[in-house]
Amino acid sequence: MGCSNEHAVLAADVLLQADLRGIDSHGVARLVGYVRLWESKRINTNPNITIVHETPTTATVDGDAGLGLVVAPFAMRLAIKKAEQYGSGWVSVRNSNHFGIAGYHSLLAVEKDMIGFAMTNASPLVAPTYSNERLLGTNPMCYAFPAGKYPPVVVDMATSAAANGKLEIAQRAGKPVPEGWIQDADGNYTTDPHALKSGGSLLPLGGDKEHGSHKGFGLSATVDILSAVLSGANYGPWVPPFVAFLQPPTDPVGLGIGHFVGAMRVDGFRPIDEFKAHLDNWITRFKSAQTVDPDQKVIIPGEPELEAEADRKVNGIPLVDAVVEDLNGLAERFGIGPLAP
Amino acid sequence: MGCSNEHAVLAADVLLQADLRGIDSHGVARLVGYVRLWESKRINTNPNITIVHETPTTATVDGDAGLGLVVAPFAMRLAIKKAEQYGSGWVSVRNSNHFGIAGYHSLLAVEKDMIGFAMTNASPLVAPTYSNERLLGTNPMCYAFPAGKYPPVVVDMATSAAANGKLEIAQRAGKPVPEGWIQDADGNYTTDPHALKSGGSLLPLGGDKEHGSHKGFGLSATVDILSAVLSGANYGPWVPPFVAFLQPPTDPVGLGIGHFVGAMRVDGFRPIDEFKAHLDNWITRFKSAQTVDPDQKVIIPGEPELEAEADRKVNGIPLVDAVVEDLNGLAERFGIGPLAP
Repeated sequence: MGCSNEHAVLAADVLLQADLRGIDSHGVARLVGYVRLWESKRINTNPNITIVHETPTTATVDGDAGLGLVVAPFAMRLAIKKAEQYGSGWVSVRNSNHFGIAGYHSLLAVEKDMIGFAMTNASPLVAPTYSNERLLGTNPMCYAFPAGKYPPVVVDMATSAAANGKLEIAQRAGKPVPEGWIQDADGNYTTDPHALKSGGSLLPLGGDKEHGSHKGFGLSATVDILSAVLSGANYGPWVPPFVAFLQPPTDPVGLGIGHFVGAMRVDGFRPIDEFKAHLDNWITRFKSAQTVDPDQKVIIPGEPELEAEADRKVNGIPLVDAVVEDLNGLAERFGIGPLAP
Repeated sequence: MGCSNEHAVLAADVLLQADLRGIDSHGVARLVGYVRLWESKRINTNPNITIVHETPTTATVDGDAGLGLVVAPFAMRLAIKKAEQYGSGWVSVRNSNHFGIAGYHSLLAVEKDMIGFAMTNASPLVAPTYSNERLLGTNPMCYAFPAGKYPPVVVDMATSAAANGKLEIAQRAGKPVPEGWIQDADGNYTTDPHALKSGGSLLPLGGDKEHGSHKGFGLSATVDILSAVLSGANYGPWVPPFVAFLQPPTDPVGLGIGHFVGAMRVDGFRPIDEFKAHLDNWITRFKSAQTVDPDQKVIIPGEPELEAEADRKVNGIPLVDAVVEDLNGLAERFGIGPLAP
């Protein structure tokens, strides 16, 4: 696509980490989507990523319509640099594109014994509480903390009841989804995973008002404001869609999509060894919690991804046929050999 | 109780703001609870609040077992001072007590055209996903943003499916609560609002795994780690209970309860007028969203509190009889006159 070698390697790393960590919806399966956006001239493969405004601990970065996969690590490295000098660093990003998994970016901070924050807005698919209009993305937020003897605690979650990837799995399998995930165009709850295609919308975390969907909406709003209202990106229904066959709104309120990343030095608060020892103690206590089903232990945030990684590093990453076909199509398109059969 | 005049006025202001904003569970209704904790020697009314560690933009504050109502504003003022100088400021707090409504503290930053963050851990009442053990508090998180022509956007939410205050309302009314709020001691969902008293627990936002309760658990964990593992306060099941008749654990892992507050200058990212104009546009768009029921508009986070405030500033704050009795009991206890009948 004309990316520099450095950018190509970095973008590939972000995608592969998603696949390794079991988040198949955000790995190489998306490659064809990025290529289509590039073909539609919505991704600039040679971006001049710039800092447009900054203080010692804050900055706004313009991604120059680059791949979010390279723009977000640029922003996080800037946040880390500020944190090294002043204790914390916070970067809001405009004019970017889909940044892959939030966890990748947060973990860049964790490697430096910092707490990592990463969030992004996304194509509008989610309706606020009481509405049947798609005004928000699945807007993930991620918080990551370095532990000692345990792997990092990584809270990496869509602020909708279910991530779009889970819906896609149900669509492919032709299976109904739980009530509380989606509504049809008229605002009736439905278990039809295809309802999104006929004007339906995803529901915020909580599902309905009685079960706290106004909280999911509030979290999603927080992500949208920090990522886009703060940086000068598009927000709410103006966020450009990820899919190339849908055109971005013709009345943009900003540039591209927005992210927000941050890093705080743990030793800006207490010695790192003390923090890690106590976080280990926290993890040990929660892992040994009494459970309703003795065979189903409490899962520490980040554990499922680590289990997937341990398995896939040994056994490889399974790809569904559709993804293999997509990748072989891309190989042909770019004149390189297909995947081994 | 022996507080300085300055502390008494500040603490009263925090409680009154809760009542004004319609959050009755966190207003003067709690006064008797604070007094009981003081009588149990768990609240120090003359705390020497100190900064025990800091960098230019981070700090850990020791509340010296003071009222959270005065310790948290101290911490937020420190965060604001750091933000004025360096763009952002972040303060983790140990050795504190219940801090009232999170929104009060976040709004201190908003007054300075900053984005405000406030969270706290709390008495263990909530079970993680799959568990029937109370290991977390309702651990609220709050994000507050200054708007232009509109009032601030204030996302102020317990990370449990329902705040304890809502449960108390159902208990007093003798009414069942929705499924997904609580489980009994064996981990069965129940609609009995009294189930908490017989070993039950509140559920994280999401309710069950299928509806994303692991996300509510992850958010609650984030609050616990930022507030307590980072500061040196007690976390998880070691958090001292709010009620004086329950003794704190005899094997504490830290000091008191913990908070985490932060402030970021909006103009550390973009000019404040631009930000406010776009946040106004965001609010206008969401307020005019298409809704399922034409009479039920989308509610902007913070709106219900503002409506309560507008009403109560004119019509007064209604107090239930039990609270009036408590307050008159306190008046007698401290040798001052009762409330006017």
